[in-house]
Amino acid sequence: MDDLKTPSLVLDKQRLAINTATMTQRMKKLGVRLRPHLKTAKSAEVAKIALEGNFGGVTVSSLAEAGYFLDHGICDITYAVCIVPTKLDAAAALSKSGADLKLITDSPEVAHAIAAHAESYQVLVEIDCGEHRTGVAPDSSALLAIADAISCSGRSRIIGVLTHAGHSYLCRSQEEMEAVANDERAAAVTAVERLKSAGHDCSVVSVGSTPTATFAKNLVGVSEVRPGVYVFMDLFQAGIGVCSRSDIALTVLASVIAHRPEVNELMLDAGGLALSKDRSTQALDEDCGYGLVCDAVTAEPISGLIVASVHQEHGQVTAPSPLPFERLPVGAKVRVMPNHACMTAAAHDTYNVIGDGCKIVDTWDRCNGW
Amino acid sequence: MDDLKTPSLVLDKQRLAINTATMTQRMKKLGVRLRPHLKTAKSAEVAKIALEGNFGGVTVSSLAEAGYFLDHGICDITYAVCIVPTKLDAAAALSKSGADLKLITDSPEVAHAIAAHAESYQVLVEIDCGEHRTGVAPDSSALLAIADAISCSGRSRIIGVLTHAGHSYLCRSQEEMEAVANDERAAAVTAVERLKSAGHDCSVVSVGSTPTATFAKNLVGVSEVRPGVYVFMDLFQAGIGVCSRSDIALTVLASVIAHRPEVNELMLDAGGLALSKDRSTQALDEDCGYGLVCDAVTAEPISGLIVASVHQEHGQVTAPSPLPFERLPVGAKVRVMPNHACMTAAAHDTYNVIGDGCKIVDTWDRCNGW
Repeated sequence: MDDLKTPSLVLDKQRLAINTATMTQRMKKLGVRLRPHLKTAKSAEVAKIALEGNFGGVTVSSLAEAGYFLDHGICDITYAVCIVPTKLDAAAALSKSGADLKLITDSPEVAHAIAAHAESYQVLVEIDCGEHRTGVAPDSSALLAIADAISCSGRSRIIGVLTHAGHSYLCRSQEEMEAVANDERAAAVTAVERLKSAGHDCSVVSVGSTPTATFAKNLVGVSEVRPGVYVFMDLFQAGIGVCSRSDIALTVLASVIAHRPEVNELMLDAGGLALSKDRSTQALDEDCGYGLVCDAVTAEPISGLIVASVHQEHGQVTAPSPLPFERLPVGAKVRVMPNHACMTAAAHDTYNVIGDGCKIVDTWDRCNGW
Repeated sequence: MDDLKTPSLVLDKQRLAINTATMTQRMKKLGVRLRPHLKTAKSAEVAKIALEGNFGGVTVSSLAEAGYFLDHGICDITYAVCIVPTKLDAAAALSKSGADLKLITDSPEVAHAIAAHAESYQVLVEIDCGEHRTGVAPDSSALLAIADAISCSGRSRIIGVLTHAGHSYLCRSQEEMEAVANDERAAAVTAVERLKSAGHDCSVVSVGSTPTATFAKNLVGVSEVRPGVYVFMDLFQAGIGVCSRSDIALTVLASVIAHRPEVNELMLDAGGLALSKDRSTQALDEDCGYGLVCDAVTAEPISGLIVASVHQEHGQVTAPSPLPFERLPVGAKVRVMPNHACMTAAAHDTYNVIGDGCKIVDTWDRCNGW
């Protein structure tokens, strides 16, 4: 790792393997399929590890990701952001290239456009289970209107429902997350039962977020779960109790570039670009600023040091107690744990993968952009 | 522009040309050289336009940028982030490839490491003119210690000083920005005079930020100015009075992907990744959330619509008055003005350049990463 330029992404392969195996086992125990959401990792190599012991289907957040994973031999792909008519041709092109692609919508107008399109599509209706971002209510008339519209031309077909309990990020205890997981399951199951009663042949009941996947006790009626950030974990997930900090597999290697002992600050060459400007831990008991400063070798947090503010290429580090300037001379390296792994990873195009003893054992690419 | 996928970056070539010509004329009038900071644009094509009528030198925020611009024929490059010893070999490699590279430091330890290095470097001492991020005080003993250390081996040499009035972003009036510009100039001139008195042959007196470059009245003693975001401008610069919104050249094209009329919200496919999580306008009178929603063709703001919250690929739009759902059906396109152009552009690898009448006239690449 000594030869790595800074800033750069470091991925701990052992932690990654433990996080993915743990989730795989959880889903097996609950009797559901795991369809990892690859929006976090955007990496074929991470996908390979996350898919070990699973059925092989994945979730993506953009059609560019879908194309990338298809190029890497993954065919069963759910694009989990509402489709719009202008993207249907691109979706059809992916299907023609071999993708077993599922789309989602919560709009009767879009459903009509899908039905009217010359190509055929597999569609899931997005259900709102309480996050209130997108999706129709499970008891809404829109649910049936969408399904009817999709099916009317006979080309495209409705294959089930999909929901995402993003509001699990507001939970602060295991009990709350378990309750949201129950709501998530109930919303999806209620919706799919209504579709079946109306004569739609639906097999997919898709739920998922990392907190609800981690704490769900009962997934009866659910066919698959789509957590994403669990592969890397991050300070936000640790802060709400989904994991511990020692599970966090992704960090940013940075160099100390300046000291300001007179104000108990030092500066890193990882700023708002390398770390992202995500401030999600601000809402938690322990605000980690823009990231937690850790030892470069052990990845253990250095007591109380956080990146308190950022400029584009500068991260300003401080702590309540005097900074260890002697331990961290100008030129020293540290690793910064991110608030939100999805956002931080997106600024980088390569994972520097470390094995035992902090040796770089591989570099893996990422599929950024749209 | 109808055929552009969403989300994607749209760059208005006319606005860009006006912004760059205006700054070029200002610097000429003030009798100083303009050394654009290309950390915002990271684009050889933007550099070409920004350098029209100027001496040809540029500023960069990473050695990757330096390499990219060198590959595009730009040799005179100042790397304006404190160098660390581990990056000296990479800097030397750039010089050997033809770069006329200037480095900066504020550390006597780094200065000794530079002097001890087998290669020779041109070094500017970074001066703190009031931002308190990096840099030594103009009246500090460290200033002379750094210069002496650099020069002692006879290989590397001190060529001047560099300062950045980043605290101009805290100003809320033209008068305040003019005052900070005075401080910026005074700090640099004071420091360089001390170096000259101590026998150092210094020719570079480098200052700059977009607000101070825009409102400086007197730059006597300054040799060059390094604004960056002026090429694109953004909502933050408009909010503090540096430009008007109609000067903003960079926007993100996005599609409406869902309606939630019951809570007066609609959803875009531009979220935290496509817009960045920069919230700089939160500190201003008019908080624009994560961006201002504009007409896709005219780029005129649609009254009161802002991106109020973001998820990775979702931007949630609302307004104090009822949203124009009929004007913006699912599938409609809008353009989002960014809070902070440097952060927003960094998520994208291509500029879709529009000329008269919103026709795409070119696509330009960007150099992301480090």
